[in-house]
Amino acid sequence: MPPTRATAIELRQAFAAGRVAPTEVTKSLLEMIGNEDKHLGAWVDVQTPLGLASPAGLATDTVGAPLFGVPVGVKDVLDTKDLRTEYGSEIYRRHRPVADAACVARLREAGALIIGKTATTEFSTRRPAATRNPLNRAHTPGGSSSGSAAAVAAGMVPLAVGTQTLGSVIRPAAYCGVFAIKPSFGIVNRLGTKLLSESVDTIGFFARSLSDLALITGAAASDPKMIELAFGGPAKAARLSLAFCRSPQWEHASEAMRAFFLSVQGELERRGHALTIELPEEFAGLDIASDAITEFETWHSLAHERVQHGPRCSPALRDLFARGGRRRFDEAASAREHAERARITLDALFQHVDCLVTPSTPGEAPVGLEDTGSPVFNKIWTLLHVPSVNVPAGKAANGLPFGLQVIARRCRDDVALAGAEQLRVLLRQIGA
Amino acid sequence: MPPTRATAIELRQAFAAGRVAPTEVTKSLLEMIGNEDKHLGAWVDVQTPLGLASPAGLATDTVGAPLFGVPVGVKDVLDTKDLRTEYGSEIYRRHRPVADAACVARLREAGALIIGKTATTEFSTRRPAATRNPLNRAHTPGGSSSGSAAAVAAGMVPLAVGTQTLGSVIRPAAYCGVFAIKPSFGIVNRLGTKLLSESVDTIGFFARSLSDLALITGAAASDPKMIELAFGGPAKAARLSLAFCRSPQWEHASEAMRAFFLSVQGELERRGHALTIELPEEFAGLDIASDAITEFETWHSLAHERVQHGPRCSPALRDLFARGGRRRFDEAASAREHAERARITLDALFQHVDCLVTPSTPGEAPVGLEDTGSPVFNKIWTLLHVPSVNVPAGKAANGLPFGLQVIARRCRDDVALAGAEQLRVLLRQIGA
Repeated sequence: MPPTRATAIELRQAFAAGRVAPTEVTKSLLEMIGNEDKHLGAWVDVQTPLGLASPAGLATDTVGAPLFGVPVGVKDVLDTKDLRTEYGSEIYRRHRPVADAACVARLREAGALIIGKTATTEFSTRRPAATRNPLNRAHTPGGSSSGSAAAVAAGMVPLAVGTQTLGSVIRPAAYCGVFAIKPSFGIVNRLGTKLLSESVDTIGFFARSLSDLALITGAAASDPKMIELAFGGPAKAARLSLAFCRSPQWEHASEAMRAFFLSVQGELERRGHALTIELPEEFAGLDIASDAITEFETWHSLAHERVQHGPRCSPALRDLFARGGRRRFDEAASAREHAERARITLDALFQHVDCLVTPSTPGEAPVGLEDTGSPVFNKIWTLLHVPSVNVPAGKAANGLPFGLQVIARRCRDDVALAGAEQLRVLLRQIGA
Repeated sequence: MPPTRATAIELRQAFAAGRVAPTEVTKSLLEMIGNEDKHLGAWVDVQTPLGLASPAGLATDTVGAPLFGVPVGVKDVLDTKDLRTEYGSEIYRRHRPVADAACVARLREAGALIIGKTATTEFSTRRPAATRNPLNRAHTPGGSSSGSAAAVAAGMVPLAVGTQTLGSVIRPAAYCGVFAIKPSFGIVNRLGTKLLSESVDTIGFFARSLSDLALITGAAASDPKMIELAFGGPAKAARLSLAFCRSPQWEHASEAMRAFFLSVQGELERRGHALTIELPEEFAGLDIASDAITEFETWHSLAHERVQHGPRCSPALRDLFARGGRRRFDEAASAREHAERARITLDALFQHVDCLVTPSTPGEAPVGLEDTGSPVFNKIWTLLHVPSVNVPAGKAANGLPFGLQVIARRCRDDVALAGAEQLRVLLRQIGA
């Protein structure tokens, strides 16, 4: 089991059995990053083996903790006191915070080794990171959590942390062919994270398996149900209903994605494993509500950078500020109310089905590094605060992966992950 | 009009008329702080006149902005790049952040002069600041926004910023006899603020008038309705229904507070200016829900300090960590659901009345500086995300002030302030 392919759970088992030490695994991953990241650009700062032996590294009292000795990469919008934190912006060149973000501190407490910071777009907005897609370096890895998705896909780290305002976790995961979760809003603490939109931003995770996603989400959120799920607990056993949903954004999907989605849906329906659902009318327009809220809130969140450092922000970011500055308080307030009503409608819908399944993205990763792709299939779910999971599934004509997004009720991240596992197994059965 | 008694709106008018310059007012306030704060302990760091002339001080392009030239004090849990930010903790002794908190940046953009940082309890929790109540120095000013309340009450600054998890804005305002608003959750950006509980913490404001509260809330939240209200706009004119509500915490009120509240209620009812309301059954237990959420979330928010700096936290804070560590994920999740249901019930209740009126605190500021008093009359409203306003009203036998709390529907901060103004005028009419 080379550490470049092992899951976090496999690593834990190897550590527990004494087959390998956490420091050895980390050392080999750091060497790999040192050798190969010049082609990928997934990392903006990495730990030294010495740093990992320091008090902020592996705590000796965390043996047996959920993430004991597991290397983790962290998107460079979360503060780390032993690694540079630049938020993808030259304003913060060489910045070293005095404290870890709450999520980072909690992962360390759960035994994780934070081995480095992964590349982000500028403050999680549009200007791309220098990261390439490890599956085809001419293509974007997606954004804004570009480095986290690419690093996991390239075998450089088994787990990574990202954030999502629109589609910044699920989209890059789909483009890079890895599993990822955007948990329910509110369950992973965001203190010390450079947020854009307080009312929707969510910290999420990338992994090579769904069990690993349950493990890290459970550790970050202190939810024992999720840790049990990671180790094959009861929630995994139940048969869940999967409702395929084209979603109001269907017209944005590529021909190939539509054909793939419909063929999976048809095949699973024939076998009695899936049903079809349409969303209520009030879901139309939620993408516009998302824009109103996130633009208005970003204008406030980045007030310091906007006012004091405007010339050091990219033209794309200054455009975003201009749009945010034109949004009105009442417009954002109505949009928040619209979202709140739709959340209650969605809660009711989830009394009839366990999970929704939609495309994760309009199609495969676009060619070029200038544009990180469209979050159109993700933004309404981020706004609705529900957990969503990317399951790599299918391929475009050029060989790049597609992904399907599994969505469950708010605060039922266990159901989203169990539904994703069920879908993963079914996809294998039908050869999709 | 001495600057120690002027409201922000009066200062703006004086600046506009050229009767006095912002720098003169600020200089005289800084002198007063230099002379008198040794007796009060309201400030932990103050600006120098030189610092206020710097680019982070008064921007020349903010003439005409809502807070042009108005001195503002900021609770020391909001980051400021030109002033020390210690969060009331020795862990952060002499810490100077690299950026302003979003709210601070927004207030500066609106023309405010941030003249200093006000004392806070340890991370806004229980260990008191060294602040005394300016009305009677043997008494607590309340907490956790101790310095902000005391500084406004003592005439050291016309406006100050605080934060509230339980009752940390409304309580010290009531104890010090000043006006304050805990705005609706979500309307004032919290980036760069050391929060305890992401799902309830709210930034609030202290002032010498209700119009000033409308002015600073409107500036921070970019809500033009509130700015209009500050200058006597239309919302002020409407007659609002005020419903007196003993609230589920009535038994915690002192004899004198109960007698005061009932006499005001009786007199205003007789005159046809008030009605009485009882809260639905589901509101019982919300104080317990608040404890579950805030303790569980604080344990996560302060993970870095808890794990890396435990010995430098006070015994009271370590107790809080111990309680938070015993809270279960599912307990916090159920409490959040309980709160969400009650918010919807409360929205419906506000279709029948405009404002609720309750005591702001159980009684006057307790004697001694060891305990900052009880937030029992505030915590459920913070949890419910509604705006609440303290109106100084009545006096205890020892001469210290009481306060009444005016509450309105979520995102109707304009109604809460207009209702508070109506109550203020009525109280004067009945001589209360």
